[in-house]
Amino acid sequence: MLETTIAAIGPLDEPAMAAARDLQGRLTKPAGSLGALEELSVRLAGLAGACPPPLPEPAAVAIFAGDHGVHAQGVTPWPQEVTAQMIGNFLAGGAVVNAFARQAGASVTVVDVGVATPVPAAPASDAGAPRLVAANVRAGTRDLAVTAALTRDEARAAVETGIRVAGELIDGGAGILLTGDMGIGNTTPAAALIAAYTGIDPAETTGRGTGVDDPTYQRKIDVVRDALRRHRPDPADPLGVLAAVGGLEHAALAGLILGAAARRTPVLLDGVIAVSAALAAAALAPDATGAMVAGHRSAEPGATVALRRLGLDPLIDLGLRLGEGTGALLALPVVTGAVRVLHEVATFDSAGVAEK
Amino acid sequence: MLETTIAAIGPLDEPAMAAARDLQGRLTKPAGSLGALEELSVRLAGLAGACPPPLPEPAAVAIFAGDHGVHAQGVTPWPQEVTAQMIGNFLAGGAVVNAFARQAGASVTVVDVGVATPVPAAPASDAGAPRLVAANVRAGTRDLAVTAALTRDEARAAVETGIRVAGELIDGGAGILLTGDMGIGNTTPAAALIAAYTGIDPAETTGRGTGVDDPTYQRKIDVVRDALRRHRPDPADPLGVLAAVGGLEHAALAGLILGAAARRTPVLLDGVIAVSAALAAAALAPDATGAMVAGHRSAEPGATVALRRLGLDPLIDLGLRLGEGTGALLALPVVTGAVRVLHEVATFDSAGVAEK
Repeated sequence: MLETTIAAIGPLDEPAMAAARDLQGRLTKPAGSLGALEELSVRLAGLAGACPPPLPEPAAVAIFAGDHGVHAQGVTPWPQEVTAQMIGNFLAGGAVVNAFARQAGASVTVVDVGVATPVPAAPASDAGAPRLVAANVRAGTRDLAVTAALTRDEARAAVETGIRVAGELIDGGAGILLTGDMGIGNTTPAAALIAAYTGIDPAETTGRGTGVDDPTYQRKIDVVRDALRRHRPDPADPLGVLAAVGGLEHAALAGLILGAAARRTPVLLDGVIAVSAALAAAALAPDATGAMVAGHRSAEPGATVALRRLGLDPLIDLGLRLGEGTGALLALPVVTGAVRVLHEVATFDSAGVAEK
Repeated sequence: MLETTIAAIGPLDEPAMAAARDLQGRLTKPAGSLGALEELSVRLAGLAGACPPPLPEPAAVAIFAGDHGVHAQGVTPWPQEVTAQMIGNFLAGGAVVNAFARQAGASVTVVDVGVATPVPAAPASDAGAPRLVAANVRAGTRDLAVTAALTRDEARAAVETGIRVAGELIDGGAGILLTGDMGIGNTTPAAALIAAYTGIDPAETTGRGTGVDDPTYQRKIDVVRDALRRHRPDPADPLGVLAAVGGLEHAALAGLILGAAARRTPVLLDGVIAVSAALAAAALAPDATGAMVAGHRSAEPGATVALRRLGLDPLIDLGLRLGEGTGALLALPVVTGAVRVLHEVATFDSAGVAEK
């Protein structure tokens, strides 16, 4: 499934992009005055192979949840059980991602791809409520400070879970996928993945996550650096990198991105977990970057390193570091607005407005 | 009316801000992880004098339109008639501001506060369609390169038009006001206002507006610098500054901001025209800044100068330079989301989630 998905990912469609550029120049506004939204609309036309591209509606957030053996190294003060507890919060609609999703009219799908402790059942609820997909590959990764986090088969299974979820959401009508994540300790493997794929020093890819103190922060950097020395992950073997120092939610998000790209559906990236997964997806299929839209710039320094490597400029930069998909949801109206302009705005000709 | 409005503007409510800070610390997310949204929610609690503050719904965009005598100096390649033609486009729903307003569920009110050429009548249309308010103070300003743009009485009349529109929109149920503007040539008086209120050199407050060429840009800077030398506007006399080098839409927007602040209703600022008007409002009533939210950072350099002076960090920074209220509309979901968090997100206690 991974190989056929990668084979289905192609480049952006140049004629559609040219048509979008031409249309932007005829709309009733000064040329270029919509800034980054204009180029975004052009890219989305190229992805869809049509001008205008379809409005990216409805939106679907997929929150992949997993736990991390590296929690044992003291890289975070939060108990591991919080991953499962927050799934309960997502399913009950009480988390920030739920509030933002309700506002944006987006569905929320929680995927247990690797939680270590018992996951609460979804409450009986009406259509449109958050839904839980049980797809646990293993009960958390192994401790990457000691051994490889995952076997190659486990990493592949998680990636293919993400591909499958993307396909199901798109088959269900989603016009855009948003990445979400939950996993206590998951900024440590994200920092390791970003360092492995980019070759940038772990001191520059590791951040304070939920806001750890100085000794914990230093320990995180040391854990990432030691893990890279121990495993020597080869960026030319993207699945091997995911297995060595990744997480199950990171691998599944890479799959979600690949699945969206193969279906020529945009995928709006959230924070540092998402962009570390995006590096994996781009390593597996370079053209997958054409489907990626960077939602926001996480406060985590590794996010900026990864975005630079991916060549993506984020839409929002407000110091968020929450994850869950919250930054992607805040950026969603910007993406929709960029496309809506191509659908709804009058041209100088049609509106009878003079040009300069 | 101006004096009673100014007298009604007071400081933010400290107990409501303290309550919002406390609540942010108990919600199911790491402390501080919502970045700028947390402080924004605190400010809006202080403005409302309540925690949580009301959701900023529904939103109302007020587009003030005016023309400019300084058009005669060749500061823009666009014909003056485009101001009135774009009003027709707004009323027909064909402009970018209309597309963004439909997406955000915001109403659009166009106010002719000083258009020089005949303004099209609003087409007969259903409730919720853009509406036109006729409040023309004069048919465009005088040429500020030659004489004062407005008399004091004209400037006051425009400010009071803005106050009146704010009151009508809030009486009609609006929970937040968004600033919009239309006026061929209006970045020239904006640059002059920003230079006058801040003392910063016109070379730093003047930009390329719709994208003028080098000779036109240099002419704009010279026009602004000469006007400031000629009129010597005194920042301690805010109405005098508006009269000397302002525009009717700038003055009306200052009034809209004052009117919103007096009613303790947030006002979401668009681009360089809005922030030049915000400097006027803050000069008239310093506490009015408490009601201001900076929607975006316009590509115009003067916008950054004004935002710095106002102490406001913009929510969106995407290189927009269109005006109309478009940047404010893109930022609206961020403002609503910031407040929604205080209404809808579970606390650690209520959700049964462990803390670190």
